[in-house]
Amino acid sequence: MVSVDLSVIAAHLEGLEETIIHRLIDRAQFRENPAAYSPGRSGFNDAGDRSLFDLRLRHQEEMDAAFGRFEVPEECPFHADLPAPRRSVALPESPLEPTAAAAVNCTPGIVETYLKFVPALCESGNDGQHGSSVEHDVLAIQAIGRRVHYGALYVAESKYRASPAQHSAAAESAAAGDRSPLLALITRPEIEDRILRRVSEKVDYIQAPLNLVVRRRIDPQIVLRLYRDTIIPMTKRGEIDYLLARAGR
Amino acid sequence: MVSVDLSVIAAHLEGLEETIIHRLIDRAQFRENPAAYSPGRSGFNDAGDRSLFDLRLRHQEEMDAAFGRFEVPEECPFHADLPAPRRSVALPESPLEPTAAAAVNCTPGIVETYLKFVPALCESGNDGQHGSSVEHDVLAIQAIGRRVHYGALYVAESKYRASPAQHSAAAESAAAGDRSPLLALITRPEIEDRILRRVSEKVDYIQAPLNLVVRRRIDPQIVLRLYRDTIIPMTKRGEIDYLLARAGR
Repeated sequence: MVSVDLSVIAAHLEGLEETIIHRLIDRAQFRENPAAYSPGRSGFNDAGDRSLFDLRLRHQEEMDAAFGRFEVPEECPFHADLPAPRRSVALPESPLEPTAAAAVNCTPGIVETYLKFVPALCESGNDGQHGSSVEHDVLAIQAIGRRVHYGALYVAESKYRASPAQHSAAAESAAAGDRSPLLALITRPEIEDRILRRVSEKVDYIQAPLNLVVRRRIDPQIVLRLYRDTIIPMTKRGEIDYLLARAGR
Repeated sequence: MVSVDLSVIAAHLEGLEETIIHRLIDRAQFRENPAAYSPGRSGFNDAGDRSLFDLRLRHQEEMDAAFGRFEVPEECPFHADLPAPRRSVALPESPLEPTAAAAVNCTPGIVETYLKFVPALCESGNDGQHGSSVEHDVLAIQAIGRRVHYGALYVAESKYRASPAQHSAAAESAAAGDRSPLLALITRPEIEDRILRRVSEKVDYIQAPLNLVVRRRIDPQIVLRLYRDTIIPMTKRGEIDYLLARAGR
């Protein structure tokens, strides 16, 4: 059984944040390479107007779908029309409420906001490393998606279990037009501040031993903003969707 | 033009070593999961006797081949019969001698030694996370392969250019049965010691802020042994193959 203990969930989120940071640092070793995101400039002979980034994300998800990645609740694909898994996957027992889990899909905003973030993350210009750039983009996006969905699903379920009546009432108010009680229940400013501080310290710390002859160091403030403006708000939106569905609204 | 300045190459190798360490730490978050490496236990309905690991490496390389990864000299695939690239890749001018570069293939030993290394890296037993385990294995193996081939190709070319006559003579001796002059030219014990020390320090440093509630810390000695017994010897074997071919032997 996957744990719904809030401290275990928080620690797991912290682990996922290290993976995100590692992958962003890896991506930043290449320049922005805007052509990799331009329609029709993929270099593929038969890919029409899709960008190299679009193609890489699509191919990665088709492969991952075949291997059963998206059978795991916190792995939410960016494409809706992926092939069925080609293998049977044995999952641990889930504490989530299945209808509520199925109601959470935070993918729509992730790609868009990540792509807006690339010019801040990378040195501008073109180094010709388009294939490596989109490879690392996709790894980073997958890590962000996992962090957002894991947080939304398990934090919401854990909170709900701690006080079902209170969360159901707040969901009722939200369904009736007043989201403020639900927002108040899922907003913990001191925790959010602690995450932001920890993320930016970790970005600094991890990069301290980098050899700057070839490794580009990224600005901790950029990762902080990614968390503050994207990862945390998306997680909360996912929590709201989960709790509304959990309360049958 | 890719640089053949030895200090630039050394710094790039240092960057690649950070990617290897990050990926090994990520793999170690899952248990050993021996079933993922067992023939016929992939869970795929139509994959015969291949293990889940074999299948993941194969699918990853087929995708990467389509995207043109293996057009880059230091990206040497683990499969010989991959599809041709589906896109045209613009590469920077290469300083390598093409026949010599084509003579280097260190892939045969990498998978075998990596798989022997997994039981030391991971906690023993099974956590059911087979898909994630092999996904991270493949990312780690690709990072190791890139480090070995980049080192072999560019270090050898750089050394050859610094003293072509000396390296040609040593290659002649090797072709005549005496490898010791060539081995002496490519062996720098003080550099190897420095790499081993740096790798183990970096493994310790990078892991210091890990939250041990969910993140497993890996033993720096394990990564040191991977470098000492596998990565460095394989790089040197690749250098020898390059220099023999470079001297027309």
